[in-house]
Amino acid sequence: MASPRTTFTSHGGTYRIEQEGTFLDLARGVGLYLPSLCGGRGKCAKCRCHPRGPVTEPTPLEAELLSPDELDGGVRLACQARPLGEVEVAIEEEVLEKGGYTEIRVAPEPLVRKAFVDLPVPAPHDDLADVERLRKRLGVPVWAAPPVLRALPAALRNAGFHATATVWDHGAAGEELLAVEAGDTRERAFGVAFDIGTTSVVGYLIDLFTGREVARSSRLNGQQPWGADVISRATHALEAPRGLEELQAAVIGTLNQILADCCADVDPGEIYYATVVGNSLMHHLALGITPATITASPYVAVSRDPLQVKATDLGIGLPNAWVYFLPPIGAYVGADTLAVIMATGLDESEDIRLAVDIGTNGEMALGSRERILACSAPAGPAFEGAEIRHGMRATAGAIDRVRIREDVRVWTVGDMPPRGVCGSGLVDALDQLVRQGIVDPGGRLLPRPRLAGKIPARVLERVVGQDHTWEFVLTWEPRIVITQDDVRQLQLAKGTILCGVRILMDELGIDGSQIAAVALAGAFGNYIDKRSALGIGMLPATIPMGRIQGVGNAAGQGSRMTLLSRSIRRRAETLARRVDYFELSKHPSFEDIFVESLAFPSPRP
Amino acid sequence: MASPRTTFTSHGGTYRIEQEGTFLDLARGVGLYLPSLCGGRGKCAKCRCHPRGPVTEPTPLEAELLSPDELDGGVRLACQARPLGEVEVAIEEEVLEKGGYTEIRVAPEPLVRKAFVDLPVPAPHDDLADVERLRKRLGVPVWAAPPVLRALPAALRNAGFHATATVWDHGAAGEELLAVEAGDTRERAFGVAFDIGTTSVVGYLIDLFTGREVARSSRLNGQQPWGADVISRATHALEAPRGLEELQAAVIGTLNQILADCCADVDPGEIYYATVVGNSLMHHLALGITPATITASPYVAVSRDPLQVKATDLGIGLPNAWVYFLPPIGAYVGADTLAVIMATGLDESEDIRLAVDIGTNGEMALGSRERILACSAPAGPAFEGAEIRHGMRATAGAIDRVRIREDVRVWTVGDMPPRGVCGSGLVDALDQLVRQGIVDPGGRLLPRPRLAGKIPARVLERVVGQDHTWEFVLTWEPRIVITQDDVRQLQLAKGTILCGVRILMDELGIDGSQIAAVALAGAFGNYIDKRSALGIGMLPATIPMGRIQGVGNAAGQGSRMTLLSRSIRRRAETLARRVDYFELSKHPSFEDIFVESLAFPSPRP
Repeated sequence: MASPRTTFTSHGGTYRIEQEGTFLDLARGVGLYLPSLCGGRGKCAKCRCHPRGPVTEPTPLEAELLSPDELDGGVRLACQARPLGEVEVAIEEEVLEKGGYTEIRVAPEPLVRKAFVDLPVPAPHDDLADVERLRKRLGVPVWAAPPVLRALPAALRNAGFHATATVWDHGAAGEELLAVEAGDTRERAFGVAFDIGTTSVVGYLIDLFTGREVARSSRLNGQQPWGADVISRATHALEAPRGLEELQAAVIGTLNQILADCCADVDPGEIYYATVVGNSLMHHLALGITPATITASPYVAVSRDPLQVKATDLGIGLPNAWVYFLPPIGAYVGADTLAVIMATGLDESEDIRLAVDIGTNGEMALGSRERILACSAPAGPAFEGAEIRHGMRATAGAIDRVRIREDVRVWTVGDMPPRGVCGSGLVDALDQLVRQGIVDPGGRLLPRPRLAGKIPARVLERVVGQDHTWEFVLTWEPRIVITQDDVRQLQLAKGTILCGVRILMDELGIDGSQIAAVALAGAFGNYIDKRSALGIGMLPATIPMGRIQGVGNAAGQGSRMTLLSRSIRRRAETLARRVDYFELSKHPSFEDIFVESLAFPSPRP
Repeated sequence: MASPRTTFTSHGGTYRIEQEGTFLDLARGVGLYLPSLCGGRGKCAKCRCHPRGPVTEPTPLEAELLSPDELDGGVRLACQARPLGEVEVAIEEEVLEKGGYTEIRVAPEPLVRKAFVDLPVPAPHDDLADVERLRKRLGVPVWAAPPVLRALPAALRNAGFHATATVWDHGAAGEELLAVEAGDTRERAFGVAFDIGTTSVVGYLIDLFTGREVARSSRLNGQQPWGADVISRATHALEAPRGLEELQAAVIGTLNQILADCCADVDPGEIYYATVVGNSLMHHLALGITPATITASPYVAVSRDPLQVKATDLGIGLPNAWVYFLPPIGAYVGADTLAVIMATGLDESEDIRLAVDIGTNGEMALGSRERILACSAPAGPAFEGAEIRHGMRATAGAIDRVRIREDVRVWTVGDMPPRGVCGSGLVDALDQLVRQGIVDPGGRLLPRPRLAGKIPARVLERVVGQDHTWEFVLTWEPRIVITQDDVRQLQLAKGTILCGVRILMDELGIDGSQIAAVALAGAFGNYIDKRSALGIGMLPATIPMGRIQGVGNAAGQGSRMTLLSRSIRRRAETLARRVDYFELSKHPSFEDIFVESLAFPSPRP
């Protein structure tokens, strides 16, 4: 069955998401923060909302916390209720809390401009061609490609020659007439900032002149049927007869779905510009370029240039738009990292900062306005719950928080019966196991006999198995465990990230205390418990916890910033060539540092 | 049934034509002049050729003039034999005569260049992206669009990184990488010059670096099913639901057929450039732009700009080519006239010259390097044999020459039994009738009684009919006549042309003796008897006959010149805005001059 679709409307914006989960989580997924004192545990009843459409039945908690009148009227708790199909939720702006990260305000410096013209009607004594007539009034030598010439005569005549011209600034190559609309439409100019992730694709519909967000939509990348990870996708592109074409069509299809989601009050013809960020594979696939060179040694991109393409040339349903692909940094480090660097202000910072985007392919950047190093730290999919016995994505029923004291206590997404463990739950659990000494610094899940008398009895009972197959039971019913193999997967993942950070620090000649701020980007970075992340040694222990912050979809933010401002677009192009890509394995002490990075901290009380 | 197809090969070139007729005429149609002392009348036997494929049976004349051995071996007279299907004719270069007009030699100044590069193979220590690797070696900041990026990685690797880059010069907008080919292909760079006529479309495949013609093909415009003239085409475009799309697809289909004809020894990927000339309607239709504004008052073009479009954007099967549409001069006067002006050198001439392109829409230009006036003289289709009782195109059996002395003598195309009269035959016939006084200066075909005793008896017998329906019998078996209505149609046509010339002369303040040269462009202009043209008063009597010359497909020549040289392309763009379009009806004495122009000269012996 297709995932349910939820549309939030708030302060004039439309936010769509196609995913399972509670409305509280779904809203957060599109950047809307409903008030919740209890952290979504069904206690505070602050997250009242009024979903319209097929939703789950009220839970016992809702029956307790909401009045019969409220229940009859369809009021629900966002942390309990979940969509079952197409649902709309209107949220009053006042109730929204500020997001978990600072949204960067960008002064719009658009590449398009609109001019209203009141043209003389052609006559026998005034027989200028349509384009010349317009050009004469605009006063600049605009040129027009066939698609706009096809629309021009009717546009001018239907409007009685009172029309608005949209003009794109190509710099040295002059100005291009992108569209002509009847009447005065000078206030309507839109753009879409895309962030193409391997898993999810997000689109932000933005007013190009004010910077206001008009709508937002998040969809699963349509390439999912060909594998969840980049390797499966690349393999399909390279080995299936029309694999590359299929993958390109799939992701372009997703972009078009997102556009359809966002275009309730905007005509696609009014969207003149789109920006795209993504990792290097997504970049190549979206453009229909083979990933052969970026997936085999010596790993080179086909192009790391910024690319501007007519939307129609890629099959994107925007008749009048240019699409700008931000330049990848290299074969491993994509334009998404470039966008993260800009969104976190690393490239303009006087202090040294670290940005880590944790995903299947962890990418990170360390530096300041002076110098920036970036590397790829392929942490693998463990933090996304993949290749973990009971791993799952952060949807309803996923254990997302774990505490071990006298016994184990777990929290789940939506307070639903547990079904598995998501990334933040895994990090939490591992942190607790390390603190208790159940997992030793080498990553060994100690046999029960070795732990007897050292940990509480009810915790001890949860260490089950024999020989090398010990595992730790998080919940008995259903039985959800962390296995020795799971620990090893997580250890490799966190070790890879730490190794990357340490090598970049070494290259810059600094230690953790000199890092002024650490930005954890991406959904996982936003939800992870910073204390636990430090607790498992995913980041150097010398970094003070207060300097670590989840920054949400920073890649999407960078795409938005670029969309709004030609200065930021130039900044991106300069930056792409200024960031030094550092290949971790080239560091002389790579093996040593990697092995050291695998270690967990010693047990603490 | 489809027209037969003939392929001539000569001096390394391939020339295709899809038309009925004798091989002598067909060869002439593609610009190959076989020797013929007798003018194709089956007398001199100089035009021996050796067609391979289905052809007509030998005529009695051939049986008489060729030896039995020759006949057995397949030798034929080009003036007698005609193709019945797919036929190939190889012609030795030595036998060819120079064409009827001077072919303009252009020093190639190509917009593309090719560079052979021997690139270092990517390695872990040398991980530049493919485009950067190439750019570094080329030493210029070339950029590449997605289609070439898609082909680039395989092209480089299949070639072991020894490859040839084709680069297009965009001037201020930089240089674009158009293609990368394995190995050293620096000597192969081709372009196609198109001339899109309402009736026929011609393509010349040219070596961009040497100017050598590699192949040529002429095809009927695929828009034929929607009418022979521009008005029917425009009506279909404006009134049928998908009329414009159909007409665009039809003419693009014709261009693709011509490319297929020409690409025997050239890969379409090696063609980097195409130029297009055509009248304003063909220009708009080929680009998919509505002809609404050029076909209704106040008659304005949508665009008179030069337009450069990727061939693939128009559905033209050239994966790597830019297509350049020369700018129309106005709604009535197209880029074909611009091309004629350049090919006849009008715009560079110190003396005043006249160029007349006679077709359904006669267009003409008069002037010199100082000033050029152009006008449209819609002569109608009479000179093409349309709307004439026994009119026909200049194919086998068409009467193309007429002499009246003691009786009437006619000659036909291919010396076949007469079937009708083509344009040059009509002009000849009319000239003879005027000379004899059978048609009076007012255009009246005099009744037989008025002519009795003034003309030879056998000629007098040919004036038949009564009252206002007198007609002149050219041949009795079959009965082919010139009617009073025919005379009126031709009178209007010649009057329109003369009126145009006289008004342009008046505007420039000159008389006919000051015109240093008159170029008659187009097929009709090439075949017409100059003496007859002057004899019917199609041109001012003050122009000496020796200054009149048929120049063949001058529009196609102008397209070729533009293809070869960036200087000539600039010249075309400057010229398009420099030519003054003159609307004939705006002349204060238009009506007077038009009526005067309708008169025929007085009878002469």
